[in-house]
Amino acid sequence: MPENDAELEFIETQVSVRYAETDKMGIAYYANYLVWFEVGRVAWCKAKGFRYAEMESKDNRYLMVAEASCRYKAPAHFEDDIVVRTGLAKATDRVIRYSYQICSKNSGQLLATGQTTHVIADMNYRPSRLPEQYRKYFGLPCKGVTKYE
Amino acid sequence: MPENDAELEFIETQVSVRYAETDKMGIAYYANYLVWFEVGRVAWCKAKGFRYAEMESKDNRYLMVAEASCRYKAPAHFEDDIVVRTGLAKATDRVIRYSYQICSKNSGQLLATGQTTHVIADMNYRPSRLPEQYRKYFGLPCKGVTKYE
Amino acid sequence: MPENDAELEFIETQVSVRYAETDKMGIAYYANYLVWFEVGRVAWCKAKGFRYAEMESKDNRYLMVAEASCRYKAPAHFEDDIVVRTGLAKATDRVIRYSYQICSKNSGQLLATGQTTHVIADMNYRPSRLPEQYRKYFGLPCKGVTKYE
Amino acid sequence: MPENDAELEFIETQVSVRYAETDKMGIAYYANYLVWFEVGRVAWCKAKGFRYAEMESKDNRYLMVAEASCRYKAPAHFEDDIVVRTGLAKATDRVIRYSYQICSKNSGQLLATGQTTHVIADMNYRPSRLPEQYRKYFGLPCKGVTKYE
Repeated sequence: MPENDAELEFIETQVSVRYAETDKMGIAYYANYLVWFEVGRVAWCKAKGFRYAEMESKDNRYLMVAEASCRYKAPAHFEDDIVVRTGLAKATDRVIRYSYQICSKNSGQLLATGQTTHVIADMNYRPSRLPEQYRKYFGLPCKGVTKYE
Repeated sequence: MPENDAELEFIETQVSVRYAETDKMGIAYYANYLVWFEVGRVAWCKAKGFRYAEMESKDNRYLMVAEASCRYKAPAHFEDDIVVRTGLAKATDRVIRYSYQICSKNSGQLLATGQTTHVIADMNYRPSRLPEQYRKYFGLPCKGVTKYE
Repeated sequence: MPENDAELEFIETQVSVRYAETDKMGIAYYANYLVWFEVGRVAWCKAKGFRYAEMESKDNRYLMVAEASCRYKAPAHFEDDIVVRTGLAKATDRVIRYSYQICSKNSGQLLATGQTTHVIADMNYRPSRLPEQYRKYFGLPCKGVTKYE
Repeated sequence: MPENDAELEFIETQVSVRYAETDKMGIAYYANYLVWFEVGRVAWCKAKGFRYAEMESKDNRYLMVAEASCRYKAPAHFEDDIVVRTGLAKATDRVIRYSYQICSKNSGQLLATGQTTHVIADMNYRPSRLPEQYRKYFGLPCKGVTKYE
């Protein structure tokens, strides 16, 4: 797992800033960036080959947020097309960390960066482990293989 | 049950307009009035003597929204103190309807009116009935009494 | 302008239900449908040939919401792909009304219908008129022509 | 200005978790904590003797968010009464930093901690300075006095 964001493989998805997401300052309200991070995570899962909704509904594992942070560099405006870039910054079978870059689609300008750290939990919010079949998506070695070496 | 809003008993609660709730027009975004209606319903339940959270968690009954409407008469601004007035417009053991008035606390001006209609549902979103012990809160006659008349 | 929704020309756009938009009942929270209506209006404007953001920033005209309503027919779940269909139900140079249909992309099922009514306003929330150059987008006859008849 | 949160003077305000703020995991969605931080900041300003709304409308100064972070320790549920504790962690006439503690009102349990860093900006989002008359609220020495020393 790369230590440095510059080496991360980023999955890109797009959102358009909604009127609902703006505030009286005329720009996107700061909490909405965390919603866009979520949109980025969902896109990352799809790009890797699974649906996060199914990880919850079929395998009873949840990526509970333990930490979130965002640095705001330039404002986003209504109807701006925004690229959400999501990279896996850390993965164990207990903790997952994502890095994000929020960019303007037109100018390419970096608008914000952020990170979220997640604990694998069960439906009762208790710490748990990533199910075996999801390890590959997160770049973790297959447990079965390791065991018999 | 009164036909006319003027005769309804309204339960009052207060919210202060959050920055997050404003939009680039400088006023509260229209969807947030439905959130305030929800705040009003929760206050109504408390005033009547029960917690809506317990109706869900202990009795597995949900007030699923079937219809919602709002008329916007004057804008609400950041930090405005808003009075949410909630009245029970209709109640059967299958359908509940609330009427709302959103007013400015300082001026008393009516900012918006609205209605929501709810179907009593179970946790699988299937139509259900109001549990016996909740009938009194909604002004419905006690079933047991009716039965032996 | 058709009286009946069945005759309306609907512009389609898509949203995917965000985790942020779900509630503890496991389905999309009712106020978010009004946000999706807004997404639909913005798409409608683009399809007609103008950006709503520019109507505000360049021409100082706002589509202030005067009324909104929604009928909820079936729930929407996290990661569901949703089609928002937006049609112009009424247009004068003072009042605009949109009709909406919210459908499941996969099943085609109708999840909700709704309407919003807007008053053309200036930046001070005062009633105003649709600028001449926007009349064509809303199917209104060109004023210049009418004048000399 | 204290370096350590333990020495900060915290201003307390209360919110009740709204249904709209929950997600399909049954708990408050993570981005909403940043909204509660905002509620905390507004309460902090009031407690200090000014309204943030007026700092914007009368003095054209905005506390633009440059950074935000949150650590989530325990979940918050629908209808939970939450205490938002807001303390001033840093203040210059260009940069303001707040620390937050989110606690359960009933149990006193610490649910989350966070920080936001703000740049004083004008209405065009350009870096600016805290107006003279606000310095006292942020514990900054009166400039006039310093000048004549």
